[in-house]
Amino acid sequence: MESEFIAWLRGRVPGLPQVRLGPSDDAAILRLAGDDCVVTVDLVTDGVDFELAKIDPRRAGRKALAVGLSDLAAMAAKPVAAFVAVALPRTGGMALPEALYEGMAPLAARYKTAIAGGDTNSWDGPLVISTTAIGTVTSRGPLLRSGAKPGDRIVVTGDFGGSILGKHLDFEPRIEEALLLNERYELHAGMDCSDGLSLDLSRLAAESGCGAVLNLSRIPISAAAREFASQQKGSGVFFADSPISPPSIGEKDSRPLLHALSDGEDFELILAVPPDDAARMIAEQPLTGVPLTEIGEFIVEPELWELLPGGDRRRLPPRGFEHALD
Amino acid sequence: MESEFIAWLRGRVPGLPQVRLGPSDDAAILRLAGDDCVVTVDLVTDGVDFELAKIDPRRAGRKALAVGLSDLAAMAAKPVAAFVAVALPRTGGMALPEALYEGMAPLAARYKTAIAGGDTNSWDGPLVISTTAIGTVTSRGPLLRSGAKPGDRIVVTGDFGGSILGKHLDFEPRIEEALLLNERYELHAGMDCSDGLSLDLSRLAAESGCGAVLNLSRIPISAAAREFASQQKGSGVFFADSPISPPSIGEKDSRPLLHALSDGEDFELILAVPPDDAARMIAEQPLTGVPLTEIGEFIVEPELWELLPGGDRRRLPPRGFEHALD
Repeated sequence: MESEFIAWLRGRVPGLPQVRLGPSDDAAILRLAGDDCVVTVDLVTDGVDFELAKIDPRRAGRKALAVGLSDLAAMAAKPVAAFVAVALPRTGGMALPEALYEGMAPLAARYKTAIAGGDTNSWDGPLVISTTAIGTVTSRGPLLRSGAKPGDRIVVTGDFGGSILGKHLDFEPRIEEALLLNERYELHAGMDCSDGLSLDLSRLAAESGCGAVLNLSRIPISAAAREFASQQKGSGVFFADSPISPPSIGEKDSRPLLHALSDGEDFELILAVPPDDAARMIAEQPLTGVPLTEIGEFIVEPELWELLPGGDRRRLPPRGFEHALD
Repeated sequence: MESEFIAWLRGRVPGLPQVRLGPSDDAAILRLAGDDCVVTVDLVTDGVDFELAKIDPRRAGRKALAVGLSDLAAMAAKPVAAFVAVALPRTGGMALPEALYEGMAPLAARYKTAIAGGDTNSWDGPLVISTTAIGTVTSRGPLLRSGAKPGDRIVVTGDFGGSILGKHLDFEPRIEEALLLNERYELHAGMDCSDGLSLDLSRLAAESGCGAVLNLSRIPISAAAREFASQQKGSGVFFADSPISPPSIGEKDSRPLLHALSDGEDFELILAVPPDDAARMIAEQPLTGVPLTEIGEFIVEPELWELLPGGDRRRLPPRGFEHALD
């Protein structure tokens, strides 16, 4: 069945110039433009990153590839190829791997990403998909987490929160946005937001050896965050231990904001932009259909902070998703 | 815990010149020598590729990296870097990922392979390890499966069969052997044997558009194959449906041979070598501690064949391991 699937796949994978040798040998051979190659690996599992019983499996396949492309976007890298290793439940037959591929193929085509190889396994466990995405940096260089400087503005794409209602599966990796912004503006640092805005921002600041202060009233809260917050209403438990007090953000119901700050899987870009370029970027709004918002500033003092109305600030403990080990 | 493990890892991963940026960002950046990059992905799972409850977890980690390096060897590529994504059982704590890394590190160091990134996940399922290995080809070019020509000799490294008794975990990827042989001799094609000698050889022949005939009396049968066959003795079931009749190979007990032909996970090299170079290679035996054996010949006629004592041949159905889907 493994051979049968690989034969099926070989008949479908489109040829792309960057692939010297595709899925037919012990390894693939890529032809890269330049010597530097950007590599990221992401593993998604049934029950954690999606619930296979509840969704079209094509969405699981699409997500597995999209998270890798989002990491390339975070580096402002151009996608070259992806490699997909799967552990398939034995009982699914060929339908599952075919659906996974069908979910990936349009996304790969859109971003000119070759699905150049992989590994097909079956076992008694749930579905696991590991995606390796490989890209190249442009002449503007890679966008790292470590380059933010105090005074840089925090600029984000799109909006945040409530991705569990659908965006966590169907998000668009910000490849085109990252390449365009890195080309037209000076960006000091960047990352994609996968584990929660406040947690990921605190990681970027820590890698850059600085801190960050957020203007919470400017956080772009998604409709999904509001919807998800209203679904949670009345539970009385969710986020009850939040350190953020509603008055400071001027909203009676701060829960949508808390979702925006901590839900994760928004897969939007968090950027550190020098003040002049940030102002220009915000004024020009160069992205089609994707708003850019300035939400705060990097500062000398470490850790994450909340800007208070009078100009003071107080500590904002980062919140988000971490894989736990007992 | 995820962050804690990554911090632990960052303190341990040695710096290597080919890594411009290691495990600290959304992706790693590799500096490659030349434009062509060889990439392979292998996924191993608890219960299929190892039994975590029965072994030192370091052996599982070592195997996960070694199978990737073996694929690079199969391409006669020099290892550059490896990326390791894991799905960890939640109950194992930090001890398991640490042990996995400790199993990989000496192997990575031996082959100057940077462990340049990865992805750490936890879930309720068994351990899964996905390894992406990246290498570069030498000026002699890559060793493909598709280059064998009728008349080429089939040459193999080492011996075959019974790897389940230990070699499937502790094998040495034939990196040094492949680079040396590709440098000193003309090799038309090659692969590593992971799913069974007869099955993998039939795949190499098929990729090359030819067939292969084996001299079964020359197959290097490992001590483990004999040991494993003797353990199976009396079961009366194992390999009872074998198409190979004992008389043709001049042994009363053909079961060790059957294991050598079909067990898989030998991770030895199968090479297609022009006759003169094959003769020279066999006479010179240039590999320290690893015998080279000529076991047959590629032929025009497709499929796999067994050479009979009188010079005739008969079909030899390939046998080995395939991941099954119901």
